Amino acid sequence: MAKAITSRSEDYSQWYIDIVKRAGLADNSAVRGCMVIKPYGFAIWEKMRDQIDLMFKETGHVNAYFPLFIPKSFLSREAEHVEGFAKECAVVTHHRLMNDPNGGGVVVDPSAKLEEELIVRPTSETIIWHTYKDWINSYRDLPLLINQWANVVRWEMRTRLFLRTAEFLWQEGHTAHATREEAVAEAELMQKVYADFAEQYMAMPVVKGTKTPNERFAGAEETYTIEALMGDGKALQAGTSHFLGQNFAKAFDVKFLNENNVEEYVWATSWGVSTRLLGGLIMTHSDDDGLVLPPKLAPTQVMIVPIPKPAVEIDEAAGIIMKALKAKGISVDYDTDPKKRPGFKFAEHELKGIPVRIGIGKRDLAKGTVEIARRDTKEKTFQPMEGVAEYIEQLLEDIQNNLFDRAVQYRADHTTSVDNFDDFKEVIESKGGFVSAHWDGTDETEKKIKELTKATIRCIPLNAEEEEGACILTGKPSKRRVLFAKAY
Amino acid sequence: MAKAITSRSEDYSQWYIDIVKRAGLADNSAVRGCMVIKPYGFAIWEKMRDQIDLMFKETGHVNAYFPLFIPKSFLSREAEHVEGFAKECAVVTHHRLMNDPNGGGVVVDPSAKLEEELIVRPTSETIIWHTYKDWINSYRDLPLLINQWANVVRWEMRTRLFLRTAEFLWQEGHTAHATREEAVAEAELMQKVYADFAEQYMAMPVVKGTKTPNERFAGAEETYTIEALMGDGKALQAGTSHFLGQNFAKAFDVKFLNENNVEEYVWATSWGVSTRLLGGLIMTHSDDDGLVLPPKLAPTQVMIVPIPKPAVEIDEAAGIIMKALKAKGISVDYDTDPKKRPGFKFAEHELKGIPVRIGIGKRDLAKGTVEIARRDTKEKTFQPMEGVAEYIEQLLEDIQNNLFDRAVQYRADHTTSVDNFDDFKEVIESKGGFVSAHWDGTDETEKKIKELTKATIRCIPLNAEEEEGACILTGKPSKRRVLFAKAY
Repeated sequence: MAKAITSRSEDYSQWYIDIVKRAGLADNSAVRGCMVIKPYGFAIWEKMRDQIDLMFKETGHVNAYFPLFIPKSFLSREAEHVEGFAKECAVVTHHRLMNDPNGGGVVVDPSAKLEEELIVRPTSETIIWHTYKDWINSYRDLPLLINQWANVVRWEMRTRLFLRTAEFLWQEGHTAHATREEAVAEAELMQKVYADFAEQYMAMPVVKGTKTPNERFAGAEETYTIEALMGDGKALQAGTSHFLGQNFAKAFDVKFLNENNVEEYVWATSWGVSTRLLGGLIMTHSDDDGLVLPPKLAPTQVMIVPIPKPAVEIDEAAGIIMKALKAKGISVDYDTDPKKRPGFKFAEHELKGIPVRIGIGKRDLAKGTVEIARRDTKEKTFQPMEGVAEYIEQLLEDIQNNLFDRAVQYRADHTTSVDNFDDFKEVIESKGGFVSAHWDGTDETEKKIKELTKATIRCIPLNAEEEEGACILTGKPSKRRVLFAKAY
Repeated sequence: MAKAITSRSEDYSQWYIDIVKRAGLADNSAVRGCMVIKPYGFAIWEKMRDQIDLMFKETGHVNAYFPLFIPKSFLSREAEHVEGFAKECAVVTHHRLMNDPNGGGVVVDPSAKLEEELIVRPTSETIIWHTYKDWINSYRDLPLLINQWANVVRWEMRTRLFLRTAEFLWQEGHTAHATREEAVAEAELMQKVYADFAEQYMAMPVVKGTKTPNERFAGAEETYTIEALMGDGKALQAGTSHFLGQNFAKAFDVKFLNENNVEEYVWATSWGVSTRLLGGLIMTHSDDDGLVLPPKLAPTQVMIVPIPKPAVEIDEAAGIIMKALKAKGISVDYDTDPKKRPGFKFAEHELKGIPVRIGIGKRDLAKGTVEIARRDTKEKTFQPMEGVAEYIEQLLEDIQNNLFDRAVQYRADHTTSVDNFDDFKEVIESKGGFVSAHWDGTDETEKKIKELTKATIRCIPLNAEEEEGACILTGKPSKRRVLFAKAY
C-alpha cells in the first residue's frame, strides 16, 4: 500500500499496469511476453471460466483436450490460415538437451532434431480438424459440439498484461455440422453466449456485430464479434465466433455421408474468449483507487473489518453476519489482522475491488448498527444488524446493475455519429470512443482510414439500420453505418 | 459396438487400450506421444479435477498460473533437477516461420533464432522459484500455498494413453515455508489429500509411503508417494509429494527475514497428480465388458432405457424417476434413441461404465416395478417405482463401497511377504502384486534387484513396523520391510 496508483487522467496505460500489479492480478515473467497470473487474478479468471463453461454446457457443448503441438505441415493446409497464424509462433525443433561438453550447464543435443518441427498451438483448428476426420463418417456423428480450455502461444512483439501476451489462457470451441445453416446458427449462438456473459456477469456492455473481410479470422467466411469500450475510449475485441464454411473440412478432407447417403464436406465454426477478458473487466469499471469488480465475479464479495480491532462482541456480530451471508451463497471474509489499522485495510480492500465492506465498531454495535460501504460509488450507510444479510444481498445486485448501467451510459456518451472525414478525425483524436460512420465497403478505404487515423472498423453492428449515406472518405454510396474506433 | 474387447486374461495391455478407445476416453494423435482426451474421458477428468481442486482449497491452497516455457539456463540451476528433467524435453529454438522460398509451405525462419532456447515445462519448480524470489521477503509472506493446473511435456520414448504420454495434464503444487517442520508437514498433508481422494473418490486403495533415495524426485530430500495395485498385478505410482528442503531456494536465491530479522532460505514442497490417474481408475475396476466407474466420478450415474422403446407411460415413469434423482443431485440420462435395441444400449452403457441402469418396460410398469442393474456386479433386481430414487441413492453408495472393498481384497490377495530371493523372484514372475521384503537400504542392492527381476521398491510404507530381518539379496541386516513390485 506504499505508493499511490497513477491516476487515469495522468497516464491511462500506467494506471492499468499499476492496477494489475498492485491488486495482485498478474506480473511479467522471466520469459519474454509470458505472464504469471497471480492467485487473486486467477481466482477472478476461475469465476469467469466456470460461468462460461456452464453456459457452454447449457448450450449442449462438451469439453475435450487436444495436443499442445501442431506439426508444421498442418499449418500450411488451409491457405489463409497459414498466412494469419504461421508467422510469429514458438517452434520446437529438438527433443533433448545434453550436458555441455565444455562445462557450463546444458545445451541442445544436435542429434535430437525433430524430423518435422512442431508449432506450439496459436489456435487449434488444424490439429482438431485432422482429428475430426477420424471421428466423422456419417450425419449421425454430427453435430460435434466440442470446446477446449487451453493455453496458446502467439509470439507478439509488443505485449501488455492480459491484453496481449505471448502465452495466454483461453477456450476454443470447434464444432462440426451437416449444413451451412446449422453452422451459421451455431456461430451466432456463441456470439450471443459471449455477449450475455459479458453483459450479465462482467457488467460490460458489448456491441454485437460482424467483422469486415479484412478483419476476419484467417480461414473464416464470417467473423462475429463482441466489442466493448474501455475507460480511455479505445475499443476491445472481447470475443469472436467464426463461421468457417467448409474451408477446414476441405483442407483436412473431412466428409460425411448425409441422410441420402451422399458424401459432403462438413461445415465448421470456431469461437474463443481468453484471459484478455480480465483486461476488459479492469478497464470497464476500475478507478483511481484500484480495481472495481462486479459482484458476480468477485472472489470475495463482502469483507468485514473490525473497528478498530477484533473484540468479543465484534467477533460475535461478524460471525452472525458471515453465517447469514454464506447461507445466501455470498462469499465473505473477516479481516482480523491485528497489525493493520482500519484505514489501511479499507484502502487494501478497495484496491482489490471487493464490492461491499462492512465496518463493525463497538459504539455502532451498541446502537444495533454496522457501517456498510459500497466499492462502486464509495457511499457509506449505517444499517441495522437486523436484516443486514438481506440488505447486502440486494446491495450486491444493485452494484452489479449500477456497474452495467454506468458502463452503458459511458458508452452512449462516447459513441458519436459523424458524416464527414474532418469530424471523424476530430472525434477519433480528441474524444475517442466509438464513431458511427458510413463506409464504402472496400478493403482499400478501410486500410486508408486506418493509416490516416489509426482507427479500425470494429464491426458492422448486427442491429445497424439500413440508411443511405456516403462514405466519409470517398463519398461513395453506403447502405449502413459501421462502428470505428482505435482499439487494443 | 462392433467387435468385442480383448479379454484381460488374453492380453491385458490390449484390453486396456481397447477400453480407452472403445469407451471413448482418449486416442492417439498426429503428434508422437501426445494424446487427444475425448469428451467422455475429459468429463471424468473434470470430475476428478474439480474434487481434487476442492480438497486443495479446503486445505488453504490457491491456484495461479505460471509460464509454459522455461529458459534453458533455469534448468541448470539445481544440480540434481537438471539431471532428472533436462534430458528428454521439447526445446523451442525459433519464434517465426516464413514462406518456403522454394515453394512448398512454410519453413523455420533462420533469422528468428532465440537468444536462449526455451524448454516446454516438464515441471515448474525452476520458473516458479524464480518468481517466488520477487514474492517473498519476510516471514509475513509465508507460507505461500500455490497450485497450478497445467499441461507439461516430457519426451517419453514409449508412451501409453494416460499412463505415460509426452504431453499430459496435471496439477503441481509449489509451497514455500518458513521452517523445515512446516514444509515436511505440508508434504505429508498433501500425500494424505491424495490418498483420501484415491480411496474415497476413485475407490482405489493406495499404500502411503516414502520413496528410496534412488526413486526420489530430482531435487527432493524426501518423496512421499501413494502406490496403487492394478488388475494385472503391477503397481502404479498414483501421486507424489516432495519435501524439497532448501534446494530450490538456494538455487534461486529465495530468502526471507524471519521474526528475529535474520535472513534464512525458504523451505519448499511440490506435489502433483496427473491424467495418469485415469489409467489407474481404469485398471483398478474395469472388466472384460468395459469401463467400470465409481459412482462419485461417473459423469452419468444412472441411465434409463425404455424397453423396447419410448412410449407414453414409459416416458412418464422415466420423467418421474429423473426428477426424483436430480433432486438428490444424482446425474441421470434417458436413452431414447429409436434406432438402437435395448440389448445394444445395455452393452453400450456397460462399456461406458455407467454405474446403474434402469430398464422400464410396459409390463413391469403395470406391476409398478422397474428393473435395476448395477454395473459392478451385473446383478439385476426389480424394484417398486415407489421409493426408487431412495433405493438408487443407497445403491450408488453400495457400489462405491463395493468397488473399494473389492480392490482392497484384490490387493490383500496380491500382497505377499517373502524372506528369500528365490521366493521373491518366483512371486514377482508368476503371481505379481506387491511383495513385502527386507532390503539392506543401499542403492546398489536396489538396482541389482531391479536388474534381476524388473521389480522396484515402490515405497517404504509409512505404517511399516520395525522388524529385524535380513536383506533378501545380500542377507545384510534390515530394520523393516519395503514394498516391491513391477510398476507402470
